[in-house]
Amino acid sequence: MTRLTKRQFLRLVGSAAGVAATYHTMNTLGLLGPESAQAATPDLPDGSGYGRRVVILGAGISGMTAAYELSKAGYHCTILEATGRAGGRNLTARAGDVIHEVDSRQWVDFDHEDHLYANLGPARIPYHHRIILGYCKEFGVELEMFTNDNRGAFFHNAERFDGQPVVGRRVMTDQRGYIAELLAKAINRNALDDDLTADDKERLLPMLVEFGGLDADYLYAGSNRGGYQGESVHAGLAPGDVNDPLDFSELLRSEFWEYKLHFSQFLNQNPTLFQPVGGMDAIAKAFETRVRRIIRYNSPVEEIRKTADGARVVHRNQRSGVSEALDADFVICTIPAPVLKDIPNDFSPETQAAIESVAFVPAVKIGFQARRRFWEDDHAIYGGISWTDQDITQIWYPANGYHREKGVVMGAYIWDDFPGQGERWANMSLPERLRTAIAEGEHLHPGYADEIESGVSRAWLKAPYQLGAWPESYQPPAEILAPDGAVYFAGDQITALPGWQEGAALAAHTVVNSIHARVMAG
Amino acid sequence: MTRLTKRQFLRLVGSAAGVAATYHTMNTLGLLGPESAQAATPDLPDGSGYGRRVVILGAGISGMTAAYELSKAGYHCTILEATGRAGGRNLTARAGDVIHEVDSRQWVDFDHEDHLYANLGPARIPYHHRIILGYCKEFGVELEMFTNDNRGAFFHNAERFDGQPVVGRRVMTDQRGYIAELLAKAINRNALDDDLTADDKERLLPMLVEFGGLDADYLYAGSNRGGYQGESVHAGLAPGDVNDPLDFSELLRSEFWEYKLHFSQFLNQNPTLFQPVGGMDAIAKAFETRVRRIIRYNSPVEEIRKTADGARVVHRNQRSGVSEALDADFVICTIPAPVLKDIPNDFSPETQAAIESVAFVPAVKIGFQARRRFWEDDHAIYGGISWTDQDITQIWYPANGYHREKGVVMGAYIWDDFPGQGERWANMSLPERLRTAIAEGEHLHPGYADEIESGVSRAWLKAPYQLGAWPESYQPPAEILAPDGAVYFAGDQITALPGWQEGAALAAHTVVNSIHARVMAG
Repeated sequence: MTRLTKRQFLRLVGSAAGVAATYHTMNTLGLLGPESAQAATPDLPDGSGYGRRVVILGAGISGMTAAYELSKAGYHCTILEATGRAGGRNLTARAGDVIHEVDSRQWVDFDHEDHLYANLGPARIPYHHRIILGYCKEFGVELEMFTNDNRGAFFHNAERFDGQPVVGRRVMTDQRGYIAELLAKAINRNALDDDLTADDKERLLPMLVEFGGLDADYLYAGSNRGGYQGESVHAGLAPGDVNDPLDFSELLRSEFWEYKLHFSQFLNQNPTLFQPVGGMDAIAKAFETRVRRIIRYNSPVEEIRKTADGARVVHRNQRSGVSEALDADFVICTIPAPVLKDIPNDFSPETQAAIESVAFVPAVKIGFQARRRFWEDDHAIYGGISWTDQDITQIWYPANGYHREKGVVMGAYIWDDFPGQGERWANMSLPERLRTAIAEGEHLHPGYADEIESGVSRAWLKAPYQLGAWPESYQPPAEILAPDGAVYFAGDQITALPGWQEGAALAAHTVVNSIHARVMAG
Repeated sequence: MTRLTKRQFLRLVGSAAGVAATYHTMNTLGLLGPESAQAATPDLPDGSGYGRRVVILGAGISGMTAAYELSKAGYHCTILEATGRAGGRNLTARAGDVIHEVDSRQWVDFDHEDHLYANLGPARIPYHHRIILGYCKEFGVELEMFTNDNRGAFFHNAERFDGQPVVGRRVMTDQRGYIAELLAKAINRNALDDDLTADDKERLLPMLVEFGGLDADYLYAGSNRGGYQGESVHAGLAPGDVNDPLDFSELLRSEFWEYKLHFSQFLNQNPTLFQPVGGMDAIAKAFETRVRRIIRYNSPVEEIRKTADGARVVHRNQRSGVSEALDADFVICTIPAPVLKDIPNDFSPETQAAIESVAFVPAVKIGFQARRRFWEDDHAIYGGISWTDQDITQIWYPANGYHREKGVVMGAYIWDDFPGQGERWANMSLPERLRTAIAEGEHLHPGYADEIESGVSRAWLKAPYQLGAWPESYQPPAEILAPDGAVYFAGDQITALPGWQEGAALAAHTVVNSIHARVMAG
């Protein structure tokens, strides 16, 4: 009779019932630490880590979180960081920065002002990302509100509504209105009598009037929620006529509704959202301040090996040009799967296969400095997002620096809506990316090109030591949820929060708790 | 044959076709100034007002706006302000302030910290209130984002859902889900075939899947938009089960949907919204700085009289105790109708009747300083509003000072949802208001009473020289839209934006343009 290894067992559970089951099984087996319903914030006893060496691969949010928590408990931690900076994908571009890609370098030519920056990696923090917000509180990182949802911003489809951008409040108001009108009709035709009690039916009709802004005959004839005709959006001195409803068939054909129109209904895009004042890297810098002395910068990992009582990490000291080895009781590896898969290692074939299976999204962001806040001046757009069916997908307006002279818009946020899209943009030359994004932006903002002073692009597919933005799947392979010997995997790639700093920090907490439990178990 | 006076004619038009018609007629007659489609921002020629005296009644936003614009053109302006402060209903309470009502005085016992204040009057500025935002830009009033809509805040009905507060994201998600499911059923039963082309029908079904988060069978079985079960709202390490949908019948009976659930769909409550950093009175103070030298404080108006070539305003100098008269070419009267109606005057009977007809809402606001930001710590609520069917109606969480020790919540915003409600609260003793609001707040936040350190209430019905919060009607009587002799009426009360600073400023612009046109016409 063949006995399943723990790993094989986990794998079976994982494939049969998904990650949740794997997680619960691992939890039961003690692999995630005893207390973690969903990875409790580590609160390790003082000195509980004395004499234990941990090597952490990557000084991103996950690696620094792990280092910070383990160090507090007395673990001897070293972070190996491949690049010259901490933060990983938490990347804010400012005047004078150099943005490296594998085959290019960009000098960021923004003005030197606090509000002129581009968050090229994560850019928002939802209210329920409590680990990251907890660190913001602990570290004194000042927050300001961010919004996805600006009803004054636009929806744009090149082939609908004569290719003209339509203001968000009209699209949202009319969609609700038409849906409410149709449902009211169906109810009044008794088409839903089998589904509704008389009582429910009686209450549902007035609810629909409220929901959609219907008239007394349960018809939708436009609503002042969508604004008034003419220059002044609001009622002004005397309410004029409200905007005519958008044509329903055209609205259906616009496909605004595919996800753009309910984007802020998504759990991680709900209000309230935040951004740190002055740039997202305020979080990275707050961590770095606390762990800087244990970071070895410019030290890319060359090999990850198992040893009799732990693991050994060979890394290159890029100053000396010499490769060095570090032995440790535990290794926490936050290296993104697209990079990790090519680092020589002693992982089991299953682990290696799992790592190779994790595909990353080739997202692209492009930030433009505008000489004039034309979105505010000309359109009363303050923050939020305009959506388009063009490649650029979105234009983000800055949620800071209101009413100042200049501002930085996110002129493209391409996350691979269409196959090959991200890769295509990654493979454009730097000037071509900017030129193309500006040309597409013109369709939302005629005259856009004249407003732009400088730009910076980030194709995460080409980011050194990243090679991608975040895992495509919300279900990481079971093998990387558990350690392979003394090597624990971390980063957002082991969570159901890919691309979110909360995932990175949650992964760190989970691994820290796991290591602690293993140490305590002797 | 009887000839209609201009006033009678206006009145006829007004009653027949509403304010819009009156407005257009007045515009045609030149009474509003030639250029005002919707009251263009005044841009009067330098010196065009030399030699003209204007007395402005009230140093609120409307009065100060008019004074600021007229003074720039050389008009000789004097503002008579009944109280010792400028700003009118723009009122921010801070440590050490004394809040006067007609029969009481309150000492504001908040801590001395920049983020601990209560905006007892206006508290938000929508993105399309371009006059006020324009002044914020011109005067350098720093803005920060405000949100009504926080999906982590609560809906509460004492008799529904066992009297427990329900988190906003679940209520909103489930309402959309149920509506989409019902409409999809009706469509699939062909109940709407007469209303939809085959094409539309084909597109509408996937739209409903997106809109409501339906499953492949067009059923709503809950959605991760409403969050996951357990402590962690988000998916965490591995997505668990999403929350079960709220019971549909109970949702219908909750009446959350009466207006609370779509509050942020309203035109003036849409994102993006703002508040000035440090308190709404930053706007009042910015105006006051620019017109202070022409304000006579503590100078309540006692009489408004017509003269041969203008008007005379008798006011009491409260320092000297002596009544004084000021003659002017024009008077701009921003005194709220409930106060104005009792000031002796020479207005026509029609004007006087119109003023008497304007009823104001007896809104009440109550601010509480909490010793701990329990809404953030315990519930991850950052800003936004919780709603209840109790008198307090709302609890606002501060959109500033995130993560600091203390905060000021708006513990009640009563605007007369039920007849007599505002008046009843106005007539409570000061301690009784606070006690009652705290007791009601307990139903949303058990332990609330222990968190509250101090409170301040404002019943606008009892505010000296205000006697109300804002006009009930969005359609001011035609008579006060036009001058009575040399007296022009202003304030939000002559607009379709009652209760909004934008209305106050728009009214001022309109009157300024009107006076300018009259002066130019000689």
